[in-house]
Amino acid sequence: MSSQIQNYRVDLGNRAYDIHIEKGCLSRIGEACTSLFGEQAKRCLIMTNDVVAPLYLATVQTSLESQAWQVSTHIIPDGEQFKTIDTWSAIMDSLMTNKLARNEPIIALGGGVVGDMAGFAAACYRRGIPFVQVPTTVLAQVDSSVGGKTAVSHAHGKNMIGAFYQPKLVWIDPNVLQTLAPNQLRAGLAEVIKYGAIWDAEFFRYVEQHAKQLHELDTKTMSKVILDSCRYKAEIVMQDETEQGARALLNLGHTFGHAIESMTHYTGYLHGEAVAIGMCMAARLSEQLGHAPHGTESSMVSALQALELPVAPPMFTAEQWLDAMGHDKKNIGSLIRYILLRGIGEAFIAEDVKDSDIQTLIQSYA
Amino acid sequence: MSSQIQNYRVDLGNRAYDIHIEKGCLSRIGEACTSLFGEQAKRCLIMTNDVVAPLYLATVQTSLESQAWQVSTHIIPDGEQFKTIDTWSAIMDSLMTNKLARNEPIIALGGGVVGDMAGFAAACYRRGIPFVQVPTTVLAQVDSSVGGKTAVSHAHGKNMIGAFYQPKLVWIDPNVLQTLAPNQLRAGLAEVIKYGAIWDAEFFRYVEQHAKQLHELDTKTMSKVILDSCRYKAEIVMQDETEQGARALLNLGHTFGHAIESMTHYTGYLHGEAVAIGMCMAARLSEQLGHAPHGTESSMVSALQALELPVAPPMFTAEQWLDAMGHDKKNIGSLIRYILLRGIGEAFIAEDVKDSDIQTLIQSYA
Repeated sequence: MSSQIQNYRVDLGNRAYDIHIEKGCLSRIGEACTSLFGEQAKRCLIMTNDVVAPLYLATVQTSLESQAWQVSTHIIPDGEQFKTIDTWSAIMDSLMTNKLARNEPIIALGGGVVGDMAGFAAACYRRGIPFVQVPTTVLAQVDSSVGGKTAVSHAHGKNMIGAFYQPKLVWIDPNVLQTLAPNQLRAGLAEVIKYGAIWDAEFFRYVEQHAKQLHELDTKTMSKVILDSCRYKAEIVMQDETEQGARALLNLGHTFGHAIESMTHYTGYLHGEAVAIGMCMAARLSEQLGHAPHGTESSMVSALQALELPVAPPMFTAEQWLDAMGHDKKNIGSLIRYILLRGIGEAFIAEDVKDSDIQTLIQSYA
Repeated sequence: MSSQIQNYRVDLGNRAYDIHIEKGCLSRIGEACTSLFGEQAKRCLIMTNDVVAPLYLATVQTSLESQAWQVSTHIIPDGEQFKTIDTWSAIMDSLMTNKLARNEPIIALGGGVVGDMAGFAAACYRRGIPFVQVPTTVLAQVDSSVGGKTAVSHAHGKNMIGAFYQPKLVWIDPNVLQTLAPNQLRAGLAEVIKYGAIWDAEFFRYVEQHAKQLHELDTKTMSKVILDSCRYKAEIVMQDETEQGARALLNLGHTFGHAIESMTHYTGYLHGEAVAIGMCMAARLSEQLGHAPHGTESSMVSALQALELPVAPPMFTAEQWLDAMGHDKKNIGSLIRYILLRGIGEAFIAEDVKDSDIQTLIQSYA
């Protein structure tokens, strides 16, 4: 076994699954599925989008068909704005038309939107069928494909409709990143640096210092970063699968980030770009409230700039920000929960941030 | 505590909940919710339909408001044909508009359709909020409100889209049955006699012999039958929450019954009526295949006739039946699973029924 093959087990009892990371493994997804689902399962549905399909659908479909799978496909348009109930409902139609049985899987081939929607479709069709994540973006490989958060969005808020529903396998081929658009690559690295900001200042610095290698898709660096990220994600999911507590730390930058995406109608920023800005805002707010030492924000800004990510929030009024965040699904009662920093490498959940604190923060950017 | 108050605990670990049966308890749902959800939860959404709303919505809403709940309501049209993604999507809009938080409940006030859809809405909104079942039909009180099967239907099959998602409380007031239409009352009793047919010949005979008291809503008889039915249901759910095995026995009569509902476009028969016919067909098929002794079918027919339920299937070709059942969600692979009888009081899962057996069965009705 080559050192380039990595397996990591997400131990969730009867919902346990493997994360498999290996260059070139895309063309062996058929064997993996046959080994996992056995001979009773005959049909599967590959769900992907119209950007990924021309690049990788044939490889995945051929691999499955060579193992005697009856493959049907469902291709959605690319983009966060299609993450809707209507798109999900059309996937349901495909599943019904192709008569997938309870033991037959959906294969999610794509980025975060494809994975989230395929997962939510798998969670609901016949009250739950298996699904496999084959992530094709950095964001999906390091974050969204692991952990079982599935969702569609609502006009009033991102990811407001969904389920906690774990995949049966996460199958990661770093080679597919070679065709990823540079802005998508950078956006995914925002979620990578997030793990460092929450738990591990050393990893934070490693990512910042290896920005060039990551942008150039250096094999060794990228593989390390994907594996470490999957481990961070898996460990917190094993502690708190349904986000009753510690898992909320992963939302660092996301309360502000979701507001940015919502206020710009999901077309102005990629998710990771919005999260990058959101992390800078969280760092500034942490300093403003006396939770983090001076310099925390500038460390965050420097690292994200090294990764060529945006750091300045778009201009909206404090009222617009608060209204957009009022719909954030992480709220309990009328409070908005923020994830703040005690410094780079240590995050916590703040339940007592006042609206006036947010007004001060927003004014500081004016 | 009066002997008319009954509590039964459904023990599912961190998803455990009480079934509470008490005449007149409808007007105390507010206290129950405050006691269950605490003071942090402030808002709730009552979901009901346009038949139940004029009868009981005011009672429930007043009870909740007297406990300082901020109540919003969502009223859907009555009928199985509205159990759709579109109706469910509109519930999502209500939840978003009213900004329910993760700890704030949906109250399902109605029959099986209301309960199933409210449950599926609760399962998906913010990846899961609590819900309370307040069942107002016999069918919902004895069957669908307990056990956590939630769903909407698809044009190609009943209940094909849903989740296993348990309520936090089932609150049963037998008094509300006084306004139930007689055909709805009878249809609910089909699910009652089903428990006897599967597990308990003595209970089967008790229900048959007390048909008159049940039709007259005799308090003592009806309370016994509701409690016993909830116990049967809860016990099997505790053994097999997600229908990997034994829970499938509860589908006795349902594979044929769902086909009847589908072929008649959900307007020809109430669900319980279709299940009654389906149980007669299952009994005849069990005899035909040599699994049950002669007389099993006639016992089933006699009991259902005593309850004034239909026993003869509508006329369709064997191909139409098989096609309608081919979409049944309990299939594994290309096999159709049938629940058959070894006699009244003992059911089993048959995986080896051939299409030709079904052709013989259908021809026997010609």
